[in-house]
Amino acid sequence: MPLNLRGVFAPLPTTFDPASGDVDPAAMAANVTRLMSSKLAGVLALGSNGETPMLDDDESDRIVEAVRASVPRDRTFLVGAGKESTRGTIASARRFAELGADAVLVRPPFYYKAQMTADALVAHFRATADASRVPVLLYNLPGTTGFTLTPPMVAALADHPNIIGLKETSPELERLGTFTTFGSGRFHVLSGWAPVLYPAIAAGAVGGILAIANVLPDECAKLCEAAAAGRHDDALARQRELTPIAQLVSSIHSVAGLKHALDLIGQHGGPVRPPLLALNDRARDEIAHALAAFRAGPHAA
Amino acid sequence: MPLNLRGVFAPLPTTFDPASGDVDPAAMAANVTRLMSSKLAGVLALGSNGETPMLDDDESDRIVEAVRASVPRDRTFLVGAGKESTRGTIASARRFAELGADAVLVRPPFYYKAQMTADALVAHFRATADASRVPVLLYNLPGTTGFTLTPPMVAALADHPNIIGLKETSPELERLGTFTTFGSGRFHVLSGWAPVLYPAIAAGAVGGILAIANVLPDECAKLCEAAAAGRHDDALARQRELTPIAQLVSSIHSVAGLKHALDLIGQHGGPVRPPLLALNDRARDEIAHALAAFRAGPHAA
Amino acid sequence: MPLNLRGVFAPLPTTFDPASGDVDPAAMAANVTRLMSSKLAGVLALGSNGETPMLDDDESDRIVEAVRASVPRDRTFLVGAGKESTRGTIASARRFAELGADAVLVRPPFYYKAQMTADALVAHFRATADASRVPVLLYNLPGTTGFTLTPPMVAALADHPNIIGLKETSPELERLGTFTTFGSGRFHVLSGWAPVLYPAIAAGAVGGILAIANVLPDECAKLCEAAAAGRHDDALARQRELTPIAQLVSSIHSVAGLKHALDLIGQHGGPVRPPLLALNDRARDEIAHALAAFRAGPHAA
Amino acid sequence: MPLNLRGVFAPLPTTFDPASGDVDPAAMAANVTRLMSSKLAGVLALGSNGETPMLDDDESDRIVEAVRASVPRDRTFLVGAGKESTRGTIASARRFAELGADAVLVRPPFYYKAQMTADALVAHFRATADASRVPVLLYNLPGTTGFTLTPPMVAALADHPNIIGLKETSPELERLGTFTTFGSGRFHVLSGWAPVLYPAIAAGAVGGILAIANVLPDECAKLCEAAAAGRHDDALARQRELTPIAQLVSSIHSVAGLKHALDLIGQHGGPVRPPLLALNDRARDEIAHALAAFRAGPHAA
Repeated sequence: MPLNLRGVFAPLPTTFDPASGDVDPAAMAANVTRLMSSKLAGVLALGSNGETPMLDDDESDRIVEAVRASVPRDRTFLVGAGKESTRGTIASARRFAELGADAVLVRPPFYYKAQMTADALVAHFRATADASRVPVLLYNLPGTTGFTLTPPMVAALADHPNIIGLKETSPELERLGTFTTFGSGRFHVLSGWAPVLYPAIAAGAVGGILAIANVLPDECAKLCEAAAAGRHDDALARQRELTPIAQLVSSIHSVAGLKHALDLIGQHGGPVRPPLLALNDRARDEIAHALAAFRAGPHAA
Repeated sequence: MPLNLRGVFAPLPTTFDPASGDVDPAAMAANVTRLMSSKLAGVLALGSNGETPMLDDDESDRIVEAVRASVPRDRTFLVGAGKESTRGTIASARRFAELGADAVLVRPPFYYKAQMTADALVAHFRATADASRVPVLLYNLPGTTGFTLTPPMVAALADHPNIIGLKETSPELERLGTFTTFGSGRFHVLSGWAPVLYPAIAAGAVGGILAIANVLPDECAKLCEAAAAGRHDDALARQRELTPIAQLVSSIHSVAGLKHALDLIGQHGGPVRPPLLALNDRARDEIAHALAAFRAGPHAA
Repeated sequence: MPLNLRGVFAPLPTTFDPASGDVDPAAMAANVTRLMSSKLAGVLALGSNGETPMLDDDESDRIVEAVRASVPRDRTFLVGAGKESTRGTIASARRFAELGADAVLVRPPFYYKAQMTADALVAHFRATADASRVPVLLYNLPGTTGFTLTPPMVAALADHPNIIGLKETSPELERLGTFTTFGSGRFHVLSGWAPVLYPAIAAGAVGGILAIANVLPDECAKLCEAAAAGRHDDALARQRELTPIAQLVSSIHSVAGLKHALDLIGQHGGPVRPPLLALNDRARDEIAHALAAFRAGPHAA
Repeated sequence: MPLNLRGVFAPLPTTFDPASGDVDPAAMAANVTRLMSSKLAGVLALGSNGETPMLDDDESDRIVEAVRASVPRDRTFLVGAGKESTRGTIASARRFAELGADAVLVRPPFYYKAQMTADALVAHFRATADASRVPVLLYNLPGTTGFTLTPPMVAALADHPNIIGLKETSPELERLGTFTTFGSGRFHVLSGWAPVLYPAIAAGAVGGILAIANVLPDECAKLCEAAAAGRHDDALARQRELTPIAQLVSSIHSVAGLKHALDLIGQHGGPVRPPLLALNDRARDEIAHALAAFRAGPHAA
């Protein structure tokens, strides 16, 4: 069965035990089990929402195992595998493939950003795709890395048989639109920016990997469907309802905001790992208010 | 008759006499007469494509007069009126209203960008809108100014009775989407970035002010219609055909590229004013090639 | 007599009549007369501190005439002449030379920043220097323009017989240090950033054009002398005393701050032109406090 | 014996076996032994020049052990201990203290840069300093992190009894100058930018941690002495000679450039870890040429 990348994916937050601060894979698995009763296409473990740069290898592996056991085979299980070195990235991709990842999402190295030339990045992604036993998704996240994967770089990679697409985490849609023309139909682009999901699909994206999908999975899936079907008024209305709460759990309050929203709906959110800070009362109120406003609207599930 | 802002506008390049370097209003008027036989909603004089920062006041006035005489009353005639000082901006807006502008487009001052706080910018636009005899369109062009008009600033201005909308010249569509929710339906947002016209309309824009509309006016208008009607496949195909030539006459080769494309189609392009440089041969070939490719495609008019 | 660029220059704020908002050249001349009793090397009219982008040509000319009449021939009189077009810049340089400028300071055009390639900028400055009857100083002000004049560009210009130096308005001293190695000793670099005056001289600068020199001219001149003489402890102590008040009248509160400081010492400050805003009470208090602190210190004149 | 931070430190590149790509601590130790016969104040292991983000914990520990064994007790041994999480940073700081570090250099976390508010960063550094058994040096490296430690943040940390200073890796000297006024004389600032070493000392720094010090240790130490002694002409001449080769082994060609320079002088440079790329022939020639030019100059040791 070919891998499905169309639709909406939830990038899972990593759950920590409030007392010890250790990872709590069982709580994550419980979150996943609920999400798998929705119309989501799949989940992503160990992305930016997973506080991955703060986990060690053993913690990462335990999370992948727990999530794998909770995702049915007809959904897609993505795992973030990017590290600063090429050898570390390849090692992660191989380990996660063994642990059951359907594909790996690989962010570019960015500590040495001035050295991350087109040649360096293309060689890094090619070496990773050559060595990985599962398909590779590229990851463009300029707000984190401080640079962008450009159309020429992605064009040089999109025909690699083991590179199947790209996640673009930004509200900049000209570049995304160009990416969607690559790869002769077998290269798929997913947006990582919920407030532009409909515009991104208008630009040619096939779906999204969206923090808010952890909270409102079916609502995100329906927006995606409306956009892909060209139901302009419906998609625009759904987008405008979703945007305020989506912003609060991503660009505005980030992982701490997402975890608080999960707590509010009875799922496992819990603490973030320092130096990330817990939300203050005002931020918590904003999220509660926006979630209530969404639920009082016409498109709540 | 209320002012129409829906659809596509051409931001006119200012035509210079090749021998003297002086403005040539008659050549501009000839360009406008051709455009007015298309489906464009109107034109903009003295925008960024008009090399406006390099014109003196007398040159500006002569251009406005010449264009006004060539735009029928059922199309919309916009004129750029932004200056660095509030008093200069007000003086320009008043002069252009007298010369027949239907509305003025006002870019933010940006020489003293660190001082252009929300308070300073809101006061500037309010004073301009209070004093102008014709409606005011805000202008967000972060690539030029180095900052953005933010949603809180625009929210503070969108209910002013003489502020009717905003032009957003960027491929960033989250902010644009938020702007489209302001003003209770009487505040209109136009995109200034042709490669994201369809996504911008998906985000709630009512049209665009697009350099490429000087060259391919009906093709731009049809893309706009397809997007607004939710014909996803048609709009996406038209966008993908238009994007390469649109990029060449805006972000890549700017005004010199636009003028060369006009020369290629038998309109009045001509030289740019230094320090802008004439295109080299390679750039000219790129534009000729992209224009030919567009015309060989399925959606050329 | 060769032009002297060593030492400290005051970039004059333009004085406006509080009632009419019109320029008040007589008040400016009074400020200059006081400055000319200090150890300053000269003054600059129509720089960024002069609110120049908000003045029209007639206002500019009247200012140059008034200041010229107040600067003795043994001091250096610089005038800012940069415009967006090459022809406008040349016209300004010629007019100011006729009105008595000893040299002109030319900022790069920056409205079309993406087009301001090395070729475009070098051609612009060369054409200006070829046409100007007085020597030209280049002006690097990346905080305003959004780009920098790079060492290769400046190297291509530093040997032009009518280009005598560069003003660098930034705290970045690697680039400044490189500039000081150009021109075989006849190309002089002045810092426009008072909080790094001593480090800039350590990097090879010959002096500065500093807003705070309008307020504390002799104190700036003495710091410059201590730095050039290698009196490390003295220069460092003077720099540390000067920096807080210098920051308040430049990067922090800009021209409005500078004008308030002038009002406090009994000189002609007065209002700024909108969209620049008047200072609030807290800012005014900060400046008064810092000025009093400086004057209570060991190095007040 | 109190820890000495005055003078010049070499940030050691990590040596890899060319065949296996594994770390080669013995080669590093040999490099250190040579450096310890110079006038350097000490060395830094596991900084940015050490390719640290690409090392695993075991590799890091082996390097610290090998270097410790090669640094005499009268020199200062610094070790980089920054990780993305506070708990990871504390664990590293403790482990390196046990392995013999005299102090640890802690870079700010920056993956979640939008969340790295003043509160988050101050809490992170305080928790680290509270828990570390050896003193902590803050590390400001905006070119890598995309943000800066600001004067208010550093002021809040400079009085912590276990925070002894800051390394500023940038050519921006206003901020550095402000940092040098903190901590009542017990907070020391070191520059990480060789092309502004003399200006940084003019701004109040006590020395530098400089890639080029691996290659030209005594020459860097003498420049530092000349600057601190106020020998302006000598320091400026030495700075100008050092800058071109220093730029080639840091900002221009980074770690690969530094390693090639070490190979050229018969020390252990060797390969970099991918995605860092080996230098091309032109880059190698540039470095060889600049090194030869330096050695032919008046200040080579």
